[in-house]
Amino acid sequence: MRFFSDNAAAACPEVLEALSAANRLDTAYDGDQWSERLDGAFSELFGKQVRALWVTTGTAANCLGLAAISPPHGAILCHEMAHIEVDEAGAPGFFTHGAKLTLLPGYGAKVTSDIVEDACARVRDDVHQVQPSALSITNATEYGLTYRPDEVAALGDLARRRGLGFHLDGARFANAIAFTGASPADATWRAGVDVMSFGFVKNGGMNAEALIFFDPAKAEVVPRLRKRAGHLLSKGRYLAAQILAMLKNDLWLTNARAANSAAAALADAAGTGRLIYPVEANEVFVKMTAGEADSLRAQGYDFYDWGPGEVRFVTSWDQELDAVGKLAAAIRAL
Amino acid sequence: MRFFSDNAAAACPEVLEALSAANRLDTAYDGDQWSERLDGAFSELFGKQVRALWVTTGTAANCLGLAAISPPHGAILCHEMAHIEVDEAGAPGFFTHGAKLTLLPGYGAKVTSDIVEDACARVRDDVHQVQPSALSITNATEYGLTYRPDEVAALGDLARRRGLGFHLDGARFANAIAFTGASPADATWRAGVDVMSFGFVKNGGMNAEALIFFDPAKAEVVPRLRKRAGHLLSKGRYLAAQILAMLKNDLWLTNARAANSAAAALADAAGTGRLIYPVEANEVFVKMTAGEADSLRAQGYDFYDWGPGEVRFVTSWDQELDAVGKLAAAIRAL
Amino acid sequence: MRFFSDNAAAACPEVLEALSAANRLDTAYDGDQWSERLDGAFSELFGKQVRALWVTTGTAANCLGLAAISPPHGAILCHEMAHIEVDEAGAPGFFTHGAKLTLLPGYGAKVTSDIVEDACARVRDDVHQVQPSALSITNATEYGLTYRPDEVAALGDLARRRGLGFHLDGARFANAIAFTGASPADATWRAGVDVMSFGFVKNGGMNAEALIFFDPAKAEVVPRLRKRAGHLLSKGRYLAAQILAMLKNDLWLTNARAANSAAAALADAAGTGRLIYPVEANEVFVKMTAGEADSLRAQGYDFYDWGPGEVRFVTSWDQELDAVGKLAAAIRAL
Amino acid sequence: MRFFSDNAAAACPEVLEALSAANRLDTAYDGDQWSERLDGAFSELFGKQVRALWVTTGTAANCLGLAAISPPHGAILCHEMAHIEVDEAGAPGFFTHGAKLTLLPGYGAKVTSDIVEDACARVRDDVHQVQPSALSITNATEYGLTYRPDEVAALGDLARRRGLGFHLDGARFANAIAFTGASPADATWRAGVDVMSFGFVKNGGMNAEALIFFDPAKAEVVPRLRKRAGHLLSKGRYLAAQILAMLKNDLWLTNARAANSAAAALADAAGTGRLIYPVEANEVFVKMTAGEADSLRAQGYDFYDWGPGEVRFVTSWDQELDAVGKLAAAIRAL
Repeated sequence: MRFFSDNAAAACPEVLEALSAANRLDTAYDGDQWSERLDGAFSELFGKQVRALWVTTGTAANCLGLAAISPPHGAILCHEMAHIEVDEAGAPGFFTHGAKLTLLPGYGAKVTSDIVEDACARVRDDVHQVQPSALSITNATEYGLTYRPDEVAALGDLARRRGLGFHLDGARFANAIAFTGASPADATWRAGVDVMSFGFVKNGGMNAEALIFFDPAKAEVVPRLRKRAGHLLSKGRYLAAQILAMLKNDLWLTNARAANSAAAALADAAGTGRLIYPVEANEVFVKMTAGEADSLRAQGYDFYDWGPGEVRFVTSWDQELDAVGKLAAAIRAL
Repeated sequence: MRFFSDNAAAACPEVLEALSAANRLDTAYDGDQWSERLDGAFSELFGKQVRALWVTTGTAANCLGLAAISPPHGAILCHEMAHIEVDEAGAPGFFTHGAKLTLLPGYGAKVTSDIVEDACARVRDDVHQVQPSALSITNATEYGLTYRPDEVAALGDLARRRGLGFHLDGARFANAIAFTGASPADATWRAGVDVMSFGFVKNGGMNAEALIFFDPAKAEVVPRLRKRAGHLLSKGRYLAAQILAMLKNDLWLTNARAANSAAAALADAAGTGRLIYPVEANEVFVKMTAGEADSLRAQGYDFYDWGPGEVRFVTSWDQELDAVGKLAAAIRAL
Repeated sequence: MRFFSDNAAAACPEVLEALSAANRLDTAYDGDQWSERLDGAFSELFGKQVRALWVTTGTAANCLGLAAISPPHGAILCHEMAHIEVDEAGAPGFFTHGAKLTLLPGYGAKVTSDIVEDACARVRDDVHQVQPSALSITNATEYGLTYRPDEVAALGDLARRRGLGFHLDGARFANAIAFTGASPADATWRAGVDVMSFGFVKNGGMNAEALIFFDPAKAEVVPRLRKRAGHLLSKGRYLAAQILAMLKNDLWLTNARAANSAAAALADAAGTGRLIYPVEANEVFVKMTAGEADSLRAQGYDFYDWGPGEVRFVTSWDQELDAVGKLAAAIRAL
Repeated sequence: MRFFSDNAAAACPEVLEALSAANRLDTAYDGDQWSERLDGAFSELFGKQVRALWVTTGTAANCLGLAAISPPHGAILCHEMAHIEVDEAGAPGFFTHGAKLTLLPGYGAKVTSDIVEDACARVRDDVHQVQPSALSITNATEYGLTYRPDEVAALGDLARRRGLGFHLDGARFANAIAFTGASPADATWRAGVDVMSFGFVKNGGMNAEALIFFDPAKAEVVPRLRKRAGHLLSKGRYLAAQILAMLKNDLWLTNARAANSAAAALADAAGTGRLIYPVEANEVFVKMTAGEADSLRAQGYDFYDWGPGEVRFVTSWDQELDAVGKLAAAIRAL
């Protein structure tokens, strides 16, 4: 009965089967038949020619993407709670050779174009100050909110006007799409996104994430950066195969819907009185006294203390409905 | 009938089974039960308390190891054909923030303590020259030669005397041990090695390599470096499980012996007239005219052109005896 | 009648004379007789054996100092208006290979131990978050406030307790000492400071700044870092000679007192109604309408627009009393 | 009677005078009247619109130049005795964020297009190998040889054909031009050079070197890199003034001719039997037994032991003819 992290969940059976199916001799690195199908599979999904590379972590996907759009002397604007700021151990600084993260405020870890514009306007255009080079958002956000396509597009307009690269951390992109019903294209490149990490591991994958460039020309140097960072696996087919399996029949959406649905059940149980943020993905932030949290833990539920009087539940693709129902009841009974 | 690269081979069945067995909910990152057993398993293998971390590539293992023992302003001495120099796309420079590789000569990609001493002696001890900080060797070497324990120990003595960290690229460590029959301890820490990459992927693994520190204190910062480089997988159990499966019952040695044995058969067929280097692992470098190479390829064999009049065959854990025998016969028939 | 920046002022005559006196053949780099006297001269000033190195900019001094006390994966805590954050173009990220600046609030660009403690407490002690490695303060601050020795000592206690290196940006250290009357020792190493930049250029120097390590052992690698960053001048004697000339007879204090005194005259003229911060060094922040600023500029005074309704005057060691008096009168007459 | 290094010489009187003349209030950084004249002065010298920036060391000039033309994942081809390889403490790795130096052989520290072509041809064009990104030569070389314009042009052709940036280390460019009589334009941009360091310090300057971009567009980011590396001095006018003084009336050539002429006198005294390299600048490499060297030192001459049986004399702009004559006689008398 673990509601601690979607990283704790197992991989889904289709992924295991794909690994078995790929378990034969093929070309090393990314010259195999599975890896070579990635560009096409994502191009189809996004309705546009894209360049797609596998990596094994969201951190690698995010930071290789950022390195491709920001020089070492630039600043990447992101929310102060963005994963790249608070949970990647300084990886953006490593991959970009020292670029700065300029931190933005915003409700529920979302930023608006006003907030971004304000941050840009405060920078003197001289050689002494680090100039903004990129904007990074997370969808769904670290607090489980989602951006609608028009919200992304407003940021995309600003990015283009300001000459900023536009990066999307899509660790939970599947959950965002499942919730908003937006088309992947509308939520990304049509709204101005240049590059995104597309998460699979939190959504039933084993160890494959995708890095997508909507303009293949911007990806030209990335295979080299990936290798230089030790992220070019010699048997890449086992990553590509996982991703292809999850794209097939929209399994990525099916899994995300299951997780979202479990979260919605918990949200419903918590009610507006306890909910800290609306639940728009698979994360549920709930006000709860330490005593209440203890009581739930005594009943066998595992979750994260987010702050004083606050806890976080995260649901997964494989959350058992029974356990979800019982936890919902337990929350109601607090 | 591929003799191109051991990276092209499939993963062995025990690895696939281990993945299935690990496919359930557990703690994320490296807090799971499999990851937590790594230190113990390698400590047992090496007869000494070690610190072991999984990563997904040899490049990551090598370069995280080098970053732990060399400062950005240092020089890492290695053979001019070392993998870290010729096949890692500059990753050592990336992970160490710009440390220099000082290239050494040596037969069959092996270095001797005389060669290393000579390189050290040529460096002026002043602030203008990059000072040697580490020594890196590969066992088995890029040309398929092996270091015996006493050869490693001579280098280890020099490293200690010169204050150099001592790194071992063990992408084919299994093949070296299988050939020399040395104990893993004698070939490494007893001979002065500080840190090594221990390869599994070329030897039947899917995507897990190990990074071993023989002095756990030197590894203290490494989990942080691994995360910062995007190499901390969120579901690490699938890496740890592979490694544990290959350590079990010395499967790593069994697999390496199979590959070595196939290579020995090819070496025997080639004969001393054609062999460029003695075959001490799973790589066979053979003199061959372009016409002869074409003729073999026409018979369905795939291998690497190493240079004018030279080809390389690499054998794998799963090489079919039949194919090996046929290739041996074809070589004999040239 | 320039009150724009103390960087605009000329070098003082003693500095020019020192350059002439040093203008003869001597050993290159820092082996000359002047460079070799630096350690001694600063050790005398601080009442303690220190290690002192010349560099040509405050940015180089600050960032070499920070690189010596913070690893690439660490976080340096500093005020959000600190020069290293807002005016060094990302140099801390360059010199430290990507360390993060964690920004702190605080009145007048000063931080308190409560503020620092609060920032430290918010960091989870795990591998995902960048851990604080150093604290950096500026004295006098970017808003012309000074730290008293006991304020520095409170921060020094915290730094020691938290295991943080403690850096002091002393671009206007002379002005701070001139104002507070504290001993250089009390304001620095006795209060726990590990390393400081000691500014001379804003105070009548030409192009020499000093980087001081209060524990010479912590400086061991710094000459190498200085060279690697292109900051080891081949004729270093011209830097050392400037610094020695300014230490002689406390010229650095005399110059700073002159600048402070001019600032005090302006502060007096502005009065508490207009002053944004108390004037404790050579910077005067004044509330002023755009019309008033225009009127002063029309009278020939040059100064910096700090923000809406705010201007900054900076006084220099060579500010003519006559011009100061006239500007004071002009401010009074607004 | 120091023949140790041209860095040991004093600054020439015109430089001191220029410092005095510039010693008044002006705009900080590089906004002053002297700095603003640099582009024009060098454009006139080179017969072409160039972008010129001051820095304080040759290392900074070289490495900022290299950083502008080579990405972190590239390789810079240079002679194995190049200053950037053997005497800059790894600064190229620091400024380029880890680019590799690929070392080339060649008589007298000169490289030829055949040597460069050969090195390029050995690199496999794949993601595993670091691809050549730039070529760097030194004129005059570290052994005092010079490149003629047609030799530079042959390298420039190759660089263009191979897509390599072309950098010239001109620490002793003045000596090369003084010897060859080539026009600065023919020796640089007309021969394909993209960027050069133009040395003044070894030639009578105090602490100013120039970094010249022949295509101003390639310099766009460089002011930012310079600041980020701590190399933007706040009173830049004292650097610009030195350079302008040395460009005036071709003082840079006059000084270089004086140094070259002293070297020629020593070369003549040594004779072809003792000379290791032809003397084409201000460095004289001479075969000499340890006893002979001792004997010269006993007579008061200071010089560098280059290797077993080899010494190096370097002459300076201010070398007294009397001392040169006496040393020449002493060498003859050996």
